[in-house]
Amino acid sequence: MSELVTPALIVDADALDHNLGTMAATLPGARMRPHVKAHKSTALAVRQAEAGHPGFTCATMAEVEGMAGAGLGRDLLLANEVVDARRLGAVVGSGARVTLAVDSSETVAAAADGGVREVVIDVNVGLPRCGCAPEDAGRLADQARSRGLEVRGVMGYEGHVVGLEDRAQRTAMVADCMALLVKAHADVGGDLVSAGGTGTYDINHWATEIQAGSYALMDTAYGRLDLPFRQALFVLSTIISVSPGWAVADCGLKSLAMDHGNPTVEGGTVWFCSDEHVTFGPTDPVQVGDRVRVVPAHVDPTVAYHRVMHLVRDDEVIGTMPVDLRGW
Amino acid sequence: MSELVTPALIVDADALDHNLGTMAATLPGARMRPHVKAHKSTALAVRQAEAGHPGFTCATMAEVEGMAGAGLGRDLLLANEVVDARRLGAVVGSGARVTLAVDSSETVAAAADGGVREVVIDVNVGLPRCGCAPEDAGRLADQARSRGLEVRGVMGYEGHVVGLEDRAQRTAMVADCMALLVKAHADVGGDLVSAGGTGTYDINHWATEIQAGSYALMDTAYGRLDLPFRQALFVLSTIISVSPGWAVADCGLKSLAMDHGNPTVEGGTVWFCSDEHVTFGPTDPVQVGDRVRVVPAHVDPTVAYHRVMHLVRDDEVIGTMPVDLRGW
Repeated sequence: MSELVTPALIVDADALDHNLGTMAATLPGARMRPHVKAHKSTALAVRQAEAGHPGFTCATMAEVEGMAGAGLGRDLLLANEVVDARRLGAVVGSGARVTLAVDSSETVAAAADGGVREVVIDVNVGLPRCGCAPEDAGRLADQARSRGLEVRGVMGYEGHVVGLEDRAQRTAMVADCMALLVKAHADVGGDLVSAGGTGTYDINHWATEIQAGSYALMDTAYGRLDLPFRQALFVLSTIISVSPGWAVADCGLKSLAMDHGNPTVEGGTVWFCSDEHVTFGPTDPVQVGDRVRVVPAHVDPTVAYHRVMHLVRDDEVIGTMPVDLRGW
Repeated sequence: MSELVTPALIVDADALDHNLGTMAATLPGARMRPHVKAHKSTALAVRQAEAGHPGFTCATMAEVEGMAGAGLGRDLLLANEVVDARRLGAVVGSGARVTLAVDSSETVAAAADGGVREVVIDVNVGLPRCGCAPEDAGRLADQARSRGLEVRGVMGYEGHVVGLEDRAQRTAMVADCMALLVKAHADVGGDLVSAGGTGTYDINHWATEIQAGSYALMDTAYGRLDLPFRQALFVLSTIISVSPGWAVADCGLKSLAMDHGNPTVEGGTVWFCSDEHVTFGPTDPVQVGDRVRVVPAHVDPTVAYHRVMHLVRDDEVIGTMPVDLRGW
């Protein structure tokens, strides 16, 4: 890895293999619909397809376009609302299968007008974000069908639950959320009940498919949960300055997402981050030129800062995974 | 602006003009060395050069390379340490002027070995980050000269002071910081005393040049200070979902830096941000499809998420400024 310019996003190949294999063993095939927003890389999505998962979840139209363009358009779910779906209609026209989330009359109209043929009704299961009221789902489904859209079912993301560290609490709250979704599904019909994330992949027994994304690479936030996935993603950094009591590595706010708080430095305690620096207290003496691995607190918006991920094993770079699904 | 795909980074042309003009009037020519890390755009740097500033500050080697490649290499200061300066030596070889910060024997050696010819001694003035101890600056300068390097002076960034909202406190602390830098300068020699930022540009009377960057675009953090600069940068977003009590705009953690906390939404109060969403409570009723402007809390790592900034006036896009200095 010594040839890499730092900061560099590196992925432990063995940890990645472990994570993909563990998930595919628990939720094989279509029981898992990997969310590409976590890694934004068609190269990594290829690995997930090879692990047996036929469909993918996307968060942006650019992700849908990129996945279809890379030949991964067998069954793409855009789990988000858009008010102009023409770019998605063009992807459908190119032969890919695209299903779009809708939660309002306006987004139903956008889907139909934009040339999308299949939708799911997005249901609010407790997270104050997108999603219609559960009792409104049937009406929206009727509206969608009246516009000629195929309604494949429902989705409802329990995003306020997936990160809870206490498993019992997480389990109880998933049940509450999914009771709402199952009720809405009864009104809507269709085959799909799409929900879940890395924190609930094995306790959400109501969803027909789980939309987890973070499990492949992981971060310190999910690392605190009782999950069988290993930390695979690191920001490789170089120590550029050492003072009595602290050291400075050359990664910072432009290579690490900060919404979940500070990252973790192996062999030290983080004091604070600046644009291009992490100031930390090292556990053992360090020298200018030493390299350290920094573990991001939140995987998705960390990866989005980088152009490429380097796949490494035993300190050797064995592959490159471009982060080619950035932007909108 | 209706043609823009959201989220989109937009820059108010009049506010930008005001900010660049105000700074150039207060600190004309070489008294100001704009820091490109705040905007990462050679197109915006051209505007700063046209405002009369001959030199620029950079934070990364990629910024130095990009600025030189764009013909803006008259006097570039990399205000940061590197342990391998060969890429900078190549830029010097191409005819640009590059001055590198050094704060240790290792970084002095890296500068000399890499083909850099000019350095400044980086002095710790109170921020626990890079910079040598003030009393060590003279020795490092001697070491640099013994390696054949031209020592242009000192730099010392009062980064722990620039954001303080109380002007009197800020003023007092700048004096303390600069006393350290002036003392180090006496031991080092050279013409440059490089320091300061947007929060101290008009109260740091010891520096011969100010390294401010944020003043051009601004953010909510600097907006709380008593500064004459206007908010020029916004993330244009589309409302994609409306529920009783809240609405959701299509920008989030991948288009907004979060290290300074939540962004601000015009016409509403932010509840929380997700990867591609801002959930907020609107002041007045909003509809799906409405557009809102979101003000970033921290300019630098917000811009680094985007490929381009759109220059707008009276809701018309009048120009494009690529964010071409991203990466490392």
